Amino acid sequence: MPSLSRTGVAIDQDLLDSFDRLIEKRGYKNRSEALRDLIRDSLIADAVDNNKEMAATLTIVYDHHVPILSEKLIEMQHHAGGQVLTSTHVHLDDHCCLEVILMKGNARDLQQVADSILSLRGVKNGKLVLTSSGD
Amino acid sequence: MPSLSRTGVAIDQDLLDSFDRLIEKRGYKNRSEALRDLIRDSLIADAVDNNKEMAATLTIVYDHHVPILSEKLIEMQHHAGGQVLTSTHVHLDDHCCLEVILMKGNARDLQQVADSILSLRGVKNGKLVLTSSGD
Amino acid sequence: MPSLSRTGVAIDQDLLDSFDRLIEKRGYKNRSEALRDLIRDSLIADAVDNNKEMAATLTIVYDHHVPILSEKLIEMQHHAGGQVLTSTHVHLDDHCCLEVILMKGNARDLQQVADSILSLRGVKNGKLVLTSSGD
Amino acid sequence: MPSLSRTGVAIDQDLLDSFDRLIEKRGYKNRSEALRDLIRDSLIADAVDNNKEMAATLTIVYDHHVPILSEKLIEMQHHAGGQVLTSTHVHLDDHCCLEVILMKGNARDLQQVADSILSLRGVKNGKLVLTSSGD
Repeated sequence: MPSLSRTGVAIDQDLLDSFDRLIEKRGYKNRSEALRDLIRDSLIADAVDNNKEMAATLTIVYDHHVPILSEKLIEMQHHAGGQVLTSTHVHLDDHCCLEVILMKGNARDLQQVADSILSLRGVKNGKLVLTSSGD
Repeated sequence: MPSLSRTGVAIDQDLLDSFDRLIEKRGYKNRSEALRDLIRDSLIADAVDNNKEMAATLTIVYDHHVPILSEKLIEMQHHAGGQVLTSTHVHLDDHCCLEVILMKGNARDLQQVADSILSLRGVKNGKLVLTSSGD
Repeated sequence: MPSLSRTGVAIDQDLLDSFDRLIEKRGYKNRSEALRDLIRDSLIADAVDNNKEMAATLTIVYDHHVPILSEKLIEMQHHAGGQVLTSTHVHLDDHCCLEVILMKGNARDLQQVADSILSLRGVKNGKLVLTSSGD
Repeated sequence: MPSLSRTGVAIDQDLLDSFDRLIEKRGYKNRSEALRDLIRDSLIADAVDNNKEMAATLTIVYDHHVPILSEKLIEMQHHAGGQVLTSTHVHLDDHCCLEVILMKGNARDLQQVADSILSLRGVKNGKLVLTSSGD
């Protein structure tokens, strides 16, 4: 089990009050847990800058009636090398598909795969989430 | 001048060391300043209008060795009503799981399901992506 | 707790020996447990005839280079009504995709959706697994 | 003439009643005959050439309220080496989960992973589909 330290934060009372309301709403048991999550998030953002090995999910919504869009999406995922692990698809309505693509690799490469998919005509919303690869 | 409070964070030594390297690189004078900025950012992200019908994906990384965590995750997803459509799981390494949960519903409800999952001990990184439901 | 009965099977010694080797390999603790599972499986196969509410997975392998095949697959899944819950896709190699489609509905309808997909040119292997919907 | 043995099955009365109705409909003269056929089928399925590189999906239905079952399932998938690619989960009702596990590897290894999962208490129905890996 890892050793535990304590550190303190000096903080405006107003800001602390707002934060307390937020973490209560979010269901955190205490400030420490919430602050640890914020710290981990900040480290992830840094890992992206440093082009580290990461995991990622790319969430897209697209209209499957746009000609050959679904073929292009599959083609791109196949040619993304080993980065694309799997994708899961849900049919939202007659037109719209929600697809989420799970990837693993170098942060910069993952961003590039995402960019190439997000710039396709017919892909309406998209968001890349980069996260720790577990190391 | 606003009144100043102090709050403490219990934190793994490893995580604290990584954070110290990050804030030094970013040019923060001390941990308090860096943590205050993280807290402000989290409050801004919360201010999103959250009452529309939306689709969402929740990306989490967690350690499946944390006792009963995987059971809690499944229990929560089952009891999230109709919001959770499906989840997809990839085994990143011996400890870490990447899981992405696809949901549909009222933005406030989706946020609530996400919060209840993200605040669990052992869920290390997580990000909710809210997107158009296609309507 | 349900009441327990015993029933006997008259069986050739050779067949019984082979079965014992199989259930040992499969990790069953005893013959009763293995035979109960066989009986349950046979009842599930029967539910197809009886047109019950079921869950199903359809496993297919296809070549995504066959023109407009991936579009047809998505189109068919969208128009299968509420039956198709989600599908998950893995890129096996440059040509081949493994896709598994999760469905819920009337057994006859699920069989029909499966048949319409399995008969598409380019879908090389496919198997429908019908299973209890949990009731 | 081969020597004949007898073996017994302990079985829920409800399950036995359902089985009796099934074998009557199918025209079996008695339970022994029906059970022998089930046993032969299971041996035939096992005798399939099982040494090739294949892709597979394992479909299971399980009750997530059975203690630590979901933890065991995740543990087993993590320790299955590179065979398990991803798994997708759908919540069927308050109790039941439909999970499909996508795998790639040597057919014998895939069968072994499947067997270790299918023999867990609480996994109610399961079926392994072995299919071409695309080569």
